Amino acid sequence: MGDVYSTELVTSSDPTHPANLIPELCRLFYELGWVTGTGGGITIRHEDKVFIAPSGVQKERIKPEHIFVLPYPEQSPSPHTDRVFLRRPEQNLKESACTPLFWNAFDLRGAGSCIHTHSQNAVLATLLWPGPVFQISHQEMIKGVRIGGNGKTLSYLDTLVVPIIENTPHEEDLRESMVAAMEQYPDAAAILVRRHGVYVWGNSWESAKTQTECLDYLFEIGVKMRQLGLATVLDSE
Amino acid sequence: MGDVYSTELVTSSDPTHPANLIPELCRLFYELGWVTGTGGGITIRHEDKVFIAPSGVQKERIKPEHIFVLPYPEQSPSPHTDRVFLRRPEQNLKESACTPLFWNAFDLRGAGSCIHTHSQNAVLATLLWPGPVFQISHQEMIKGVRIGGNGKTLSYLDTLVVPIIENTPHEEDLRESMVAAMEQYPDAAAILVRRHGVYVWGNSWESAKTQTECLDYLFEIGVKMRQLGLATVLDSE
Amino acid sequence: MGDVYSTELVTSSDPTHPANLIPELCRLFYELGWVTGTGGGITIRHEDKVFIAPSGVQKERIKPEHIFVLPYPEQSPSPHTDRVFLRRPEQNLKESACTPLFWNAFDLRGAGSCIHTHSQNAVLATLLWPGPVFQISHQEMIKGVRIGGNGKTLSYLDTLVVPIIENTPHEEDLRESMVAAMEQYPDAAAILVRRHGVYVWGNSWESAKTQTECLDYLFEIGVKMRQLGLATVLDSE
Amino acid sequence: MGDVYSTELVTSSDPTHPANLIPELCRLFYELGWVTGTGGGITIRHEDKVFIAPSGVQKERIKPEHIFVLPYPEQSPSPHTDRVFLRRPEQNLKESACTPLFWNAFDLRGAGSCIHTHSQNAVLATLLWPGPVFQISHQEMIKGVRIGGNGKTLSYLDTLVVPIIENTPHEEDLRESMVAAMEQYPDAAAILVRRHGVYVWGNSWESAKTQTECLDYLFEIGVKMRQLGLATVLDSE
Repeated sequence: MGDVYSTELVTSSDPTHPANLIPELCRLFYELGWVTGTGGGITIRHEDKVFIAPSGVQKERIKPEHIFVLPYPEQSPSPHTDRVFLRRPEQNLKESACTPLFWNAFDLRGAGSCIHTHSQNAVLATLLWPGPVFQISHQEMIKGVRIGGNGKTLSYLDTLVVPIIENTPHEEDLRESMVAAMEQYPDAAAILVRRHGVYVWGNSWESAKTQTECLDYLFEIGVKMRQLGLATVLDSE
Repeated sequence: MGDVYSTELVTSSDPTHPANLIPELCRLFYELGWVTGTGGGITIRHEDKVFIAPSGVQKERIKPEHIFVLPYPEQSPSPHTDRVFLRRPEQNLKESACTPLFWNAFDLRGAGSCIHTHSQNAVLATLLWPGPVFQISHQEMIKGVRIGGNGKTLSYLDTLVVPIIENTPHEEDLRESMVAAMEQYPDAAAILVRRHGVYVWGNSWESAKTQTECLDYLFEIGVKMRQLGLATVLDSE
Repeated sequence: MGDVYSTELVTSSDPTHPANLIPELCRLFYELGWVTGTGGGITIRHEDKVFIAPSGVQKERIKPEHIFVLPYPEQSPSPHTDRVFLRRPEQNLKESACTPLFWNAFDLRGAGSCIHTHSQNAVLATLLWPGPVFQISHQEMIKGVRIGGNGKTLSYLDTLVVPIIENTPHEEDLRESMVAAMEQYPDAAAILVRRHGVYVWGNSWESAKTQTECLDYLFEIGVKMRQLGLATVLDSE
Repeated sequence: MGDVYSTELVTSSDPTHPANLIPELCRLFYELGWVTGTGGGITIRHEDKVFIAPSGVQKERIKPEHIFVLPYPEQSPSPHTDRVFLRRPEQNLKESACTPLFWNAFDLRGAGSCIHTHSQNAVLATLLWPGPVFQISHQEMIKGVRIGGNGKTLSYLDTLVVPIIENTPHEEDLRESMVAAMEQYPDAAAILVRRHGVYVWGNSWESAKTQTECLDYLFEIGVKMRQLGLATVLDSE
């Protein structure tokens, strides 16, 4: 299996190739405060190949040669040992601990990309909404979020509902409660993890990124509204 | 009509050509948090040609070839079907949903440019000022805003008044209430849209951008002052 | 006087030449939110020449050829008509409205540079300290501010005192009250202008910039402390 | 000793050489608001050589030739006069006033790097936690912090404890109280200095930087939670 370390699958002169996009987007997400301290990340699936960044490295400094390529769907995401790799870095790196969670987005929603942030807006939303869901209505930015993350966009008159699951000491142990929340809330475009962050998916990386931006905006303004004593959900007329 | 896809109208080596400025300014506005999640945008009118970005694309990644060119004024902005294009992108893109609103600024104020942001400062201002207008006085930055958006600059002793209209599920349906507000408040340099954002115009892109920056500053400091329990409008001596 | 439009005085390959530094620093100050909406600015004096940016232009887009050069001290800063220029831009531009205020820093403190910002931290400080001075003590960053702006640095045990003058409709009319405040508070490194911003000076541009950063930090943390109900001035032991 | 001014020890084409990394990281820290006004800094130790930036210079403008190289451990960090230099800049510069504090991290924890910030998040944490320690629990980002700064990472179920020492007028006088705090809290990854900032170390610059980012995030969210009236330490089940 010597050629699993080949850089062929992560070498491209096309700036929109996943191996080039992931480093570029991770730099952007770092600037947005979403992936500081090596946290968070993004996966992009291109047909039967999944591109994933390594765990525990500075996200703004990832290079194409650091990226893992896994086959889809020909493997079980759990247990997370004995994973099959089409390509892995030579360095002593591990694939992102989010891998089983990313797989949920592929398996349950047919996602082409999934983004995980530790944004403080997401974490504060989970603290100020102590129940099972974050909710907000009557915000223009709701229109940038899609039903189920992969369907039609929400209307301005829809209330956005994002399930919140409880955090676990090991990231991979979130897999089952994330599945349960995705099944209970089939229209949800994302899953918040209390005291941790958020997982957002979409049919493409563009869609996942757009929805992550809209949701982060809505978490942020929701938190500010609660601080100001403003109602975040209004009755629709 | 094959040549409507020609890139001629959006190709220029001049960095101040609208087809080059719109991508550059959209990147800046993205960094300012004004156009995340594909929201917001800018139009620049050059005599009888209007340059407009597409709808639903990542604003920080727009390229000149994505830009629409429409004739001015030889068309009705409404209904928003059957628009005439001097140039449109080959990709399956739609012109910005703000187009009828931008047209209001051209028609009613002779504007040369109009900017639309989803800035949280603007949205929070519409929430903390639940009435028909946002008002603030005695701030130096008021002096950067123009009477009617296209006239003389306000004085430090003037109170800034920005009308707020109610949001609608479809952006183009804001057209008539925006017209009504512009007619009722002929001195206003901008129209806030509750729970949505703001439209700001000027004689040129420089003027529209400067006024948007001043207004966003004033929305932000107004919101902070309300949070701190400070009066935002003082009696003039 | 045809050669007053020559670019010779503002052309240099040295990146630390004032004509190159002013554009670079204005871009930085724009990113810091200090000079949005064409507000604020910086002057650098090099012996008997004063370099000043134009008024009412986008500060992050200034180029060396936009810069004015005035002789020092051979002219009266007031009235601000009939100014003498060693060099002025060909465009129809006016020198910064701050010019008489910058001259105060040269005349009264021998400053080599003066920075004016519209930072919201400065403005909020003037609102939360409604009296004649802003004060804060027991902050490490106080050590970056100099006595009188041009002397020794303050000690951690010193209380920082920054006078606040009242704003006027025309910027040049601040000149006399700024002089009065500088005379009344000879140890002050800066003058706050209520509802407007701050003027900070130093022996060199590096010193003016360092002190502006320290003061802006102190205004910001002072405002946050007031919001949190924390005392901003402690008794020294 | 003429060759102490040679640039040989600070010249490398390798971007990960300490003399190249320190300027790059200082620019990043400036953008993060950690080292404005010349405050803060970073040291990197490479075996028996310690690379340190100068004191009192604009951190975002440091160049490799400004960097000091000191031998490790062959010198006493105190008194801070009569230091031995393998290399020093020709300019009239002093090594960072943090030097004795950096030495604590080398001596007591075998650190390979130490970062000092004046981040407002750190300072506000010391104000809202008036006792001897900052504490927070049940935050995912705790997992990015290491036991003692150089050991295993903390678990999600661990409570993060960061000692707070009182500030002194002269930075070098913090040395002994920092030693005492490091001895009293052997598991601490950092030392907060009240009304001043934080010192964070790690086995490598990557580890020191990652931990500084995680801690700064935790200080920030801790401060926000206190503002919102939320408990920052929960009982573990």
